[in-house]
Amino acid sequence: MKSHTEYLTMNIPCRMAFVNITPQVEDALNKSGVSEGIVLINSMHITSSVFVNDDESGLHHDFGKWLEGLAPFNPDPNHYHHNRTGEDNADAHMKRQMMGREVVVAITNGHLDLGPWEQIFYGEFDGNRPKRVLVKIIGE
Amino acid sequence: MKSHTEYLTMNIPCRMAFVNITPQVEDALNKSGVSEGIVLINSMHITSSVFVNDDESGLHHDFGKWLEGLAPFNPDPNHYHHNRTGEDNADAHMKRQMMGREVVVAITNGHLDLGPWEQIFYGEFDGNRPKRVLVKIIGE
Amino acid sequence: MKSHTEYLTMNIPCRMAFVNITPQVEDALNKSGVSEGIVLINSMHITSSVFVNDDESGLHHDFGKWLEGLAPFNPDPNHYHHNRTGEDNADAHMKRQMMGREVVVAITNGHLDLGPWEQIFYGEFDGNRPKRVLVKIIGE
Repeated sequence: MKSHTEYLTMNIPCRMAFVNITPQVEDALNKSGVSEGIVLINSMHITSSVFVNDDESGLHHDFGKWLEGLAPFNPDPNHYHHNRTGEDNADAHMKRQMMGREVVVAITNGHLDLGPWEQIFYGEFDGNRPKRVLVKIIGE
Repeated sequence: MKSHTEYLTMNIPCRMAFVNITPQVEDALNKSGVSEGIVLINSMHITSSVFVNDDESGLHHDFGKWLEGLAPFNPDPNHYHHNRTGEDNADAHMKRQMMGREVVVAITNGHLDLGPWEQIFYGEFDGNRPKRVLVKIIGE
Repeated sequence: MKSHTEYLTMNIPCRMAFVNITPQVEDALNKSGVSEGIVLINSMHITSSVFVNDDESGLHHDFGKWLEGLAPFNPDPNHYHHNRTGEDNADAHMKRQMMGREVVVAITNGHLDLGPWEQIFYGEFDGNRPKRVLVKIIGE
């Protein structure tokens, strides 16, 4: 069994954004030499996500609005108890639960075995600081 | 390490439905010859899900109503910007995020290591056309 | 390839709670002898979750309130059809979908490759009875 580990650093200059990281995952796969196996891609932070969806700017706008409606930003410590710790990011923990921590993608014949529209995204919900994404590949 | 890959084709003759695909995953496992490992099952499309829950028709009714409440269908391009592309399925992208893209199931002693009520489902949110599900097995 | 399987039993004496199970997963990893690979941790029940987030009591309060708002407990069989089966836990199936069934964590140099605040939680949404969590480790 082969394994390969990479850490991507994300620097998002705003609170919420979605970044296509499929090219970086493909680069890691090429370095790994794995032709059959899986790749795990996960945020190493609890206020951001890794997920698979469409690379379409209108949809990303819709995701932002939808998440803000279901888990609104509110720094008031009477609204979210987490914000009594001095943080203001309780909402980001919830947005991340809706979009997910991780994805596992199959590797077949040396390629990411993705459907025609599947792209891998980093979703930031509490940006303005560096954060890491783990790429772990196992297989043969 | 052994690996085995299958692609299931789903043809759902309506917009939203849930289909138990546990038998197809068991078939793939039997063909793989793997007795210890994992199986990844994921939708290859971004408007459908693979998830684990209960095979009970009342619950599926409830899931449909609940998802429609939290991410309603609305073809109006003023409501969802994604629908300015000519699509009408922005809501399906959101429903899929709530139900998830994929599941990973353990393989122990040659069987899917599922709890007593765990069944694997395909969740369709924009049907009426063929779509694919990937089954990837790795192990020994 | 090595593999290791453990079943944790959870006994939560209330309807909803979040329990940090990172120490039990680390114990399983130490027994496995795996230094490079992955660990799958999943609830074996469909009314509870395994997820990664912050070990902060205010946040757990917020999660409970948020989930109750989006998928409220309601035993009335006219509200949730699932409750026509004699169950009262339809809401727990929905809460579990929001928080997720499983996590996959990388194993690097013999350790769980978690970010600084990442902790692994069991989330119970229909407690007061024993339930199981599966820990499956594969690697070398």
